[in-house]
Amino acid sequence: MAAPSYDVVGIGNAIVDVLARADDALVQRQGLVKGTMALVDAVRAEAIYATMPAAVEKSGGSVANTIAGIASLGGRGAYIGKVRDDALGGVFAHDLKTLGVRFDTRPAKSGPPTARCLILVTPDAQRTMCTFLGACVELGPEDIDEALVASAAVTYLEGYLFDPPRAMEAFRKAATVAHQAGRQVALSLSDPFCVDRHRAEFRELVDRHVDVLFANEHEICALYETAHFELAAEAVRGHCDIAVLTRSERGSDIVTKERMLHVAPVPVRQVVDTTGAGDLYAAGFLYGFTHGRDLEACGKLGGLCAAEIIAHVGARPETSLKRLAEGAGLI
Amino acid sequence: MAAPSYDVVGIGNAIVDVLARADDALVQRQGLVKGTMALVDAVRAEAIYATMPAAVEKSGGSVANTIAGIASLGGRGAYIGKVRDDALGGVFAHDLKTLGVRFDTRPAKSGPPTARCLILVTPDAQRTMCTFLGACVELGPEDIDEALVASAAVTYLEGYLFDPPRAMEAFRKAATVAHQAGRQVALSLSDPFCVDRHRAEFRELVDRHVDVLFANEHEICALYETAHFELAAEAVRGHCDIAVLTRSERGSDIVTKERMLHVAPVPVRQVVDTTGAGDLYAAGFLYGFTHGRDLEACGKLGGLCAAEIIAHVGARPETSLKRLAEGAGLI
Repeated sequence: MAAPSYDVVGIGNAIVDVLARADDALVQRQGLVKGTMALVDAVRAEAIYATMPAAVEKSGGSVANTIAGIASLGGRGAYIGKVRDDALGGVFAHDLKTLGVRFDTRPAKSGPPTARCLILVTPDAQRTMCTFLGACVELGPEDIDEALVASAAVTYLEGYLFDPPRAMEAFRKAATVAHQAGRQVALSLSDPFCVDRHRAEFRELVDRHVDVLFANEHEICALYETAHFELAAEAVRGHCDIAVLTRSERGSDIVTKERMLHVAPVPVRQVVDTTGAGDLYAAGFLYGFTHGRDLEACGKLGGLCAAEIIAHVGARPETSLKRLAEGAGLI
Repeated sequence: MAAPSYDVVGIGNAIVDVLARADDALVQRQGLVKGTMALVDAVRAEAIYATMPAAVEKSGGSVANTIAGIASLGGRGAYIGKVRDDALGGVFAHDLKTLGVRFDTRPAKSGPPTARCLILVTPDAQRTMCTFLGACVELGPEDIDEALVASAAVTYLEGYLFDPPRAMEAFRKAATVAHQAGRQVALSLSDPFCVDRHRAEFRELVDRHVDVLFANEHEICALYETAHFELAAEAVRGHCDIAVLTRSERGSDIVTKERMLHVAPVPVRQVVDTTGAGDLYAAGFLYGFTHGRDLEACGKLGGLCAAEIIAHVGARPETSLKRLAEGAGLI
């Protein structure tokens, strides 16, 4: 097996975030559930946008945020995802390529515009998201560059990919190609409602195709239909090699067949916006994982990257994660 | 004369800012002059963008920033400017309307896309700007809503409007309508290079059509072709009723026929990004001016709003300027 050319290739919904501060009343009036992601069509997206305060636009997308984080750590990242050939598609591509991330999925030349995620950040720093999938619905197996997937140590997939119609095919193709090439497959469960929408498929995937699973407390509980984190953590043990369970201010737990390892959180002076916390935890973890670190070091790197992202608005790093990790003695 | 329905109607280039941190070397490599604005075509804009780090997109445009500031102070603002009917045009419109600003200039249905301004913020917090005018070139006198202009206490124009081909006609029409309605006209000189490009027209305008002139040191020196601020300040005296000269960390000087008034700057803990400093100074000043405050109070309000904007990235207020001004005892 050849040495990998990339540490991680990510496959996800390519989205530009529209971030604004909002009060809880606005979240409620729009019938949204705080801390989660709702899918909305173009009409509803416009209606919600019209109620939002002045906003800022930043590249986002769960797995794309992770790949940006890996690049910021000095890792070799690549990304597969679908934008339209419009201004926001150009923004999304620019913000990955400028980090050195390989991104050459062909943009859609017709159909819906580049996806947007309206993000309401409430005073408690929680984010509530409304996603208009736009051009993401065009992603299909034909977009999976087999040679690229085979050349990456880890293929990282987001659960959100189960929402657009043909992305699941792309997802399965990528997982198959990766394993045939002797590589590993990682998956993020993305969102508890997303898990509810696709529980059976997720369970089957975790059982058969996933080497490293990322989930927060709500997501892992949703997967195993329990209200108790401990029961969920016990349930996942044995279904995949490594389950990485993030628990916000309680740090993270890493579950393997043999043991359960707790990693303390990294203290943050002021939590400003939790958008991207899970994505950047995955970045740190996967960077460590693809650079031969032990699980504890991987978890610490994850916590460090998550701490950077929640200290400012937006889900892309604003400082060099490499320098940050070097400063903390983690790389 | 009827009481005005609006405090200020602004007419300007409708632009979305693309802001990124950059080092001085990047500014130099691109042949740009730090602290100024260069006009670029679509091809050069793409080339510069490709060299920029990951960026954030925020609504901008000099006069639009000012009108946003006036709205944030609780004033009644309206805006005239040209976007395309594309995603960034929608962002620009949203970010004004959500503040309560009236903005109903018809977007262009064909032609170039919504304008973008690439802004490199260097470690000294200075901003260097490259503007691709895009749809702004479509603005013409037919876009001037005469009833709207006649209903605003002040019509505020940016010197940058002299760059697109037909905006100067729109500019002159608006000034004429405003004066015929017994209203006042304010002008920002915008940029020293912009003054160099259009010096004769600017001098004639200031002489004959402008009641309140805004300029920074470089701009007023460029207008009167002198290297000495004092000489420039003396030259402008008598050419318009009020000349408001901003001097960065030295505060501002307000020149009238009778006197020259110095206003001390508002201290800022850390200057992060000077983008929009002049625009927000004008917002504070014009809010005071249209609410019957004396010139000193107008200047203090200007300084307060400028201090807010330079403490964060981007040229739109991130806190309520009304609360800030109330807290400072200025309104």
